[in-house]
Amino acid sequence: MLGPERLKISLEEYIKTQQWKEQPVGLYEPIRYIMGIGGKRLRPLFLMISHQLFKLDTKKALPAAFALELFHNFSLVHDDIMDEAIVRRGHRSVHAAYGINTGILSGDVMLIYVYEYLLKNYPPNLSYNLLEVFNGVAIEVCEGQQLDMDFEKMDRVGMKEYIGMIRQKTAVLFGGALKMGAIIGGANETDQQALYDFGCWIGTAFQLQDDILDLYGDPDFFGKKVGGDIVQNKKTILVIQAINLAKDNHKQRLRDLLSASDEITKVEEAVRLFNELGVKQKAEEIRDQYISKAWEMLNKLSVPDEGLDILRSISNKLIHRIN
Amino acid sequence: MLGPERLKISLEEYIKTQQWKEQPVGLYEPIRYIMGIGGKRLRPLFLMISHQLFKLDTKKALPAAFALELFHNFSLVHDDIMDEAIVRRGHRSVHAAYGINTGILSGDVMLIYVYEYLLKNYPPNLSYNLLEVFNGVAIEVCEGQQLDMDFEKMDRVGMKEYIGMIRQKTAVLFGGALKMGAIIGGANETDQQALYDFGCWIGTAFQLQDDILDLYGDPDFFGKKVGGDIVQNKKTILVIQAINLAKDNHKQRLRDLLSASDEITKVEEAVRLFNELGVKQKAEEIRDQYISKAWEMLNKLSVPDEGLDILRSISNKLIHRIN
Repeated sequence: MLGPERLKISLEEYIKTQQWKEQPVGLYEPIRYIMGIGGKRLRPLFLMISHQLFKLDTKKALPAAFALELFHNFSLVHDDIMDEAIVRRGHRSVHAAYGINTGILSGDVMLIYVYEYLLKNYPPNLSYNLLEVFNGVAIEVCEGQQLDMDFEKMDRVGMKEYIGMIRQKTAVLFGGALKMGAIIGGANETDQQALYDFGCWIGTAFQLQDDILDLYGDPDFFGKKVGGDIVQNKKTILVIQAINLAKDNHKQRLRDLLSASDEITKVEEAVRLFNELGVKQKAEEIRDQYISKAWEMLNKLSVPDEGLDILRSISNKLIHRIN
Repeated sequence: MLGPERLKISLEEYIKTQQWKEQPVGLYEPIRYIMGIGGKRLRPLFLMISHQLFKLDTKKALPAAFALELFHNFSLVHDDIMDEAIVRRGHRSVHAAYGINTGILSGDVMLIYVYEYLLKNYPPNLSYNLLEVFNGVAIEVCEGQQLDMDFEKMDRVGMKEYIGMIRQKTAVLFGGALKMGAIIGGANETDQQALYDFGCWIGTAFQLQDDILDLYGDPDFFGKKVGGDIVQNKKTILVIQAINLAKDNHKQRLRDLLSASDEITKVEEAVRLFNELGVKQKAEEIRDQYISKAWEMLNKLSVPDEGLDILRSISNKLIHRIN
């Protein structure tokens, strides 16, 4: 079996050899651009690792893996327009580089090409099964994105709603990647389902960790501004737990914090208050519960241990952001 | 066989009974809105009429017909954002009513539901064949939309390029509708192809007529401002033919016209100059050539005359905008 590094080399090679049409330039150039500025390629790698649990021939997994990376990039292109984010992976976001109209339309055609890759590279029945899984996931990703935007405008979001939102926006795509890899590899339905569930739990933990790192991560290492979520009024696990944990005088400080407008004071006070409340520890505890749920799923699988080790290892790296 | 009116009643009934999820409201409400404010439903009707040539059971065609109407509406939602058009079918366009972010994301999920309808309502092999046709068409529609935007910025566009653009942006979707109807009806490949070609020619004529009516149509009847294309600097068949026909002193007048900024003077001078050049007659001649090409295709079909009469009749109404 191949480790994640070797799989990533095959994937990058495949990405590089995909020929986008030359014309119209305004439609296809942005796709070459966004697909060419890197990224961790987590979703396609999950698909390839899952496939490898059942079949050693990496090649069969590549078109579907590529399709998922394309879908992820489509969603980034449109999300960056909606969030007015002008930087992506240390480069200009697509709409910042090419304009909003180009971002919308190139994103649309990227989404259509996701289906093209799933249709053209597999026999009809396999293709149909992959499309069914993918389409369910794609709908959930849109619903999650809408909820994320809705939550920004709400004063208070419950834990259950929040976990539901990040599950849809982020986690099901990891679940879908693993399930699609399993389907291509010819896995039985029990294994397909266990891998799907594993991906959803680990994807949830991944997003919770993202929330934690937004305030507590090393900005030099992650290349993001500390506390961006707080400034944007995002209801992350940190804010939700702070609301849950706050009593008496902390409640007023929290209200003041959430309505404060000066960015730097806001982030500094958030760290101070959250530390007093033990928010980080609580959030890590919840994250670890999801990681445990994920590990449990692996016990249901009937696959070689070597493959499971690879899946565990990339999941650990994913959570703890080890390159 | 059912006439277009009866088919439209079935279709509207089907559209009305489709249940969109209640949540998230911000995602699904705009879909209910845009699908509920009417429209001519030409693409789904073409699909249903084509299906009826081979099978009389209307029901089987409905989900695919609906999918195409959904796709058409998705493209309108995103196009209206790109064109900054705030009116659609006499109502506010989706982004004008709900905001640009909602327009982008609701449009995205509409596109994903097009696939959902094609996946969930047909046996896998039929579904696969429909998806293949649809996906090819969807890519061309995006390419055509990009070329349309590119042409606005260009000084001169050749006839061949222009016809290629409207073929992609408008006509192939009519061709695809007819082909998909034929596939669901169990037509042989010759009939499928003849209907596809018919749709592409008639769709091209439809767009040419649209160009002509933009300047020469009765604004009370069409509910559009006269000369919108001229004001927007669109390179329609009228402008392209004017450039081709202009000699000597007309050339300078045409250059002045195209660079003029006052909207009313611009439209009035366009009518004056185009009349002197005989642009309308020339454009109608070209339109009629495409209509003839379309009629020729019908001779290749082995289907009942009654069905062909219905197809000819709706095509004539389509071109001449008879309700």
